[in-house]
Amino acid sequence: MMTDKFMKVISANAAIIERKLGEKLDLIKADPDYKYFSTLEESMRYSLMAGGKRLRPCLSMEFARLFGGNVDAALDFGCSLEMIHTFSLIHDDMPCMDNDELRRGKPTNHIVYGESTALLAGDALIAHAFETLESQNVSDKQNLEAYKLLARCTGPVGMCAGQQIDLENEGKEIDIKTLETLHAKKTGALIRCACLLGCIASGKISGTQEYSDADEFASCIGLAFQIADDILDVTGDEEKLGKKCGSDEKEEKNTYVTLLGIEKAKELANSLCERAKNIIKKYPESDFLCELADYIIERDN
Amino acid sequence: MMTDKFMKVISANAAIIERKLGEKLDLIKADPDYKYFSTLEESMRYSLMAGGKRLRPCLSMEFARLFGGNVDAALDFGCSLEMIHTFSLIHDDMPCMDNDELRRGKPTNHIVYGESTALLAGDALIAHAFETLESQNVSDKQNLEAYKLLARCTGPVGMCAGQQIDLENEGKEIDIKTLETLHAKKTGALIRCACLLGCIASGKISGTQEYSDADEFASCIGLAFQIADDILDVTGDEEKLGKKCGSDEKEEKNTYVTLLGIEKAKELANSLCERAKNIIKKYPESDFLCELADYIIERDN
Repeated sequence: MMTDKFMKVISANAAIIERKLGEKLDLIKADPDYKYFSTLEESMRYSLMAGGKRLRPCLSMEFARLFGGNVDAALDFGCSLEMIHTFSLIHDDMPCMDNDELRRGKPTNHIVYGESTALLAGDALIAHAFETLESQNVSDKQNLEAYKLLARCTGPVGMCAGQQIDLENEGKEIDIKTLETLHAKKTGALIRCACLLGCIASGKISGTQEYSDADEFASCIGLAFQIADDILDVTGDEEKLGKKCGSDEKEEKNTYVTLLGIEKAKELANSLCERAKNIIKKYPESDFLCELADYIIERDN
Repeated sequence: MMTDKFMKVISANAAIIERKLGEKLDLIKADPDYKYFSTLEESMRYSLMAGGKRLRPCLSMEFARLFGGNVDAALDFGCSLEMIHTFSLIHDDMPCMDNDELRRGKPTNHIVYGESTALLAGDALIAHAFETLESQNVSDKQNLEAYKLLARCTGPVGMCAGQQIDLENEGKEIDIKTLETLHAKKTGALIRCACLLGCIASGKISGTQEYSDADEFASCIGLAFQIADDILDVTGDEEKLGKKCGSDEKEEKNTYVTLLGIEKAKELANSLCERAKNIIKKYPESDFLCELADYIIERDN
């Protein structure tokens, strides 16, 4: 069980993140020809503002806090990352991908706006992420490093690579190394990006001890997050999840549960979570991030 | 008719651009897990290396040359822009958009690799554009300005907005202001980006006379380029174009030809081209760019 204090920080951060996301979308409305393409912005907003715990930007903010850095810059960076996360959900739900009609209990983007606009909304969210990433609160060097990291974690060696591995192995039996690579990229890349953006916002750029600690923490919780997702698909409450359960098995997806069985999957998630906490315990005020590691494997949606 | 010297520069630039594009794709192969997702990279390469005149990066290089700037930086920036251009072609050809099976005489990406991989290849090209944009030859400020410009020209107030306007008005009669807005964004935004990236590579950032001259030149040739495209769809040679002609009329697309008639469309393209040339004639060595303006309306593919 999470403490009240933890849940309060999660909610407070989510509120700050959503206000900032809204502001970043409002920039689109300033275009003098906005009326001609307002539907595109509405479609982006529909998915970006559809709720969720905002774990990724929250991780950026809390790593910036852990390392005494600039939380406002981490918020700017993290909101761009949330746009990338949202684009991936919109494209993932499309008929040529997972063909999902529900996401967090609401009709998916292409169900509401049609496939063409959903495709464009995803594309536009990627570009808007890069347009609005720069923070006024840090140096040009830090901004540039944030740009490159976000691009790398999103692109053809990051999340997109993970999606490709997933596609190619649907319905096939795969080994644990392939499954690990798949998830290190598909979900892991953006979680890693979230933690490292917080480091960059603190001036702890690549090469520092803090950066490599955050990197290792992120790898552990990224994998634990995915295992927890796989477990939730079997044991979860459909209402809380806002989607159908058991779909992984039906669609012959490769998951940690199908590969290891549910008990071994739970053990693995637990041990990854412990490892993550041990890495950051040496820093003062690491309590929140340690609770976040627990939350990732104990959450029910 | 273009001079031999002009056509030689076009070919020489295209060869330099293609070598650089190939190098930027090779970076993906350095990932230790490349073998798991090599198809994604192949699919990106298939479309990115499918030829074409490479007009956009060529514009970046030549504007850098015109303003005495760093042509290598312009090449880096321009190659990222070419990736953005290619992503837009891949997604545009998909069944939920234009549903085209041929592009430059070759099967489109989704015909060869399937819709899911084509979708991912487009997404990955956007991210890879931003990952590989930074040039070592210019300042951090110039790199940051290039990032933001590319993102803005691509995203929800740039090219994506133009595609949305196009989508919403298919089969509808529209006025000339709507058509202008559509094309200023759909094709104009990236051509403008190309010219301005050349300025940024020369240290002529926004606010300078050179930047605003390049901006105006770009608006004129961007629009002329689209009008020429519309004319080619009616009068062009299918073999040279590598696609079917007359498709705009069949698909009830709004074009300058359907709206103005072919003669008026030609007149407009010519006068835009003259205006473009007049803007840059004051700079020494503007001959190539003036010929490029002519080429844009005289080309046969």
